[in-house]
Amino acid sequence: MRFDTVTIVGVGLISGSFSLALKDRGLVRRVIGVSRTQASTQKALELGLIDEALPLDEAVKQSDLIYVAIPVDVTIPVMGQIMDMITDRQIVADAGSTKLALCESLDGHPMRSRFVAMHPMWGTEYSGPEAAVRDAFKGRCCVICEKEKSDADAVDVMEDLYRQMGMHFVYMDANSHDMHAAYVSHISHITSFALANTVLEKEKEESAIFELAGGGFESTVRLAKSNPSMWLPIFMQNREHVLDVLNEHISQLRKFKSCLEKENEGYLRELMENANKIRRIIK
Amino acid sequence: MRFDTVTIVGVGLISGSFSLALKDRGLVRRVIGVSRTQASTQKALELGLIDEALPLDEAVKQSDLIYVAIPVDVTIPVMGQIMDMITDRQIVADAGSTKLALCESLDGHPMRSRFVAMHPMWGTEYSGPEAAVRDAFKGRCCVICEKEKSDADAVDVMEDLYRQMGMHFVYMDANSHDMHAAYVSHISHITSFALANTVLEKEKEESAIFELAGGGFESTVRLAKSNPSMWLPIFMQNREHVLDVLNEHISQLRKFKSCLEKENEGYLRELMENANKIRRIIK
Repeated sequence: MRFDTVTIVGVGLISGSFSLALKDRGLVRRVIGVSRTQASTQKALELGLIDEALPLDEAVKQSDLIYVAIPVDVTIPVMGQIMDMITDRQIVADAGSTKLALCESLDGHPMRSRFVAMHPMWGTEYSGPEAAVRDAFKGRCCVICEKEKSDADAVDVMEDLYRQMGMHFVYMDANSHDMHAAYVSHISHITSFALANTVLEKEKEESAIFELAGGGFESTVRLAKSNPSMWLPIFMQNREHVLDVLNEHISQLRKFKSCLEKENEGYLRELMENANKIRRIIK
Repeated sequence: MRFDTVTIVGVGLISGSFSLALKDRGLVRRVIGVSRTQASTQKALELGLIDEALPLDEAVKQSDLIYVAIPVDVTIPVMGQIMDMITDRQIVADAGSTKLALCESLDGHPMRSRFVAMHPMWGTEYSGPEAAVRDAFKGRCCVICEKEKSDADAVDVMEDLYRQMGMHFVYMDANSHDMHAAYVSHISHITSFALANTVLEKEKEESAIFELAGGGFESTVRLAKSNPSMWLPIFMQNREHVLDVLNEHISQLRKFKSCLEKENEGYLRELMENANKIRRIIK
């Protein structure tokens, strides 16, 4: 299977990496980029992520596949526009970190079945076309939501593409996706942002952080470099699940605090031994 | 400079990696290992981390350098024993993550000047002899505390060793070390332990964590795999500084929580933009 023309809406980390993966495998003849930021399309052209930059309506008209990877708040109106333009020989897919609001917004749309709601579970803390990398997605999981609302041929095509990039699949309803995403991804970003603020607040000697910070610190705060324009709408759209897990996290931290205050070594050890169980899950 | 015999007290991640670094550079003829756990010395012998296992007093007698890398609570009495046995031609160094309690315990000891209080800022979440790696320490910073209380020849020798392993140095008093270590290392471990407990508590479907967890999650929880026997005494010895930064961290998390509850997007963006400043510090 080979596309003639694919449009990526948004020319950044995810869409740029997706485009490179298509091109590297000879799965597409031409990639069109759509972005409101001219500097981004310019950069994407230079980097070979796209072959051409066009306005959205022009691009959609010419494409077999329209791949949307922009902040999740903007996705909703833009996706609406796209769905109003397509024919039933085209496929639309997204790559957003939240799924419920988007799926609900498309419910009942006459073209709903041409849309595949997807979340490839891969990313880095960087953004923009310069952040795109080769061989992204490999070995990671891709979530597909409301598979039953998409045409089988559209799902097959999208699975085939991602499978060639090394992904495997899980299927869930949109609300379950958002809940799990809060637990295994969104909360990590909140803790990392908050940890960066903590250390910047307490550690006035930046040279000390710079000198002393080892791999452990870097690893726990690296997500704090993530783009607020990406993450703010994710947190807002998924605020109930995120609040739920954030409340639990604060209460877990309070247990550590209370152990230290009371010098309760027994319970402190128990907390850490319980945390060690994460070894079963991440290698 | 080349040692005839070095003793490592504790045969684990740090001491094992130190021994490999000495051996790889031809800086020592023979390494003796001291451990209360026979399985560990056996493993260390098999892995070539040590050439011989001896009881502490025998080992100390035969060594030019005694390098102590055991949990920081046990370090204090063991270091007392060692210091009572050495002559002024021997050197003693440690690698502990806290410095104040140990330095205070040795204050006024007749052999104090043969001891160099050091913290090589390197580690992984693994422990035991199997965790030892080649080329550890490279590019990292080593803190030396109370340099003025150590003989110049002892400091020179230790700096020379670590410099050959690729380390550079900063000098501070023991209390400042413990404060900075709380900010840039100990709090990262607490947040990681607590995040693991949060997710294990909220996410009852372990298969979902396993499938969905991406690089971001792994990065923020990997320290939760750390050994409680190492970290419990660190947190207890450094509890005042750790509590101080933990309180700040909980209050930073509460700001995120309040923004989500009140849907205060403006302030939420501000918090994330502030956290982005960590880019200045970690690359």
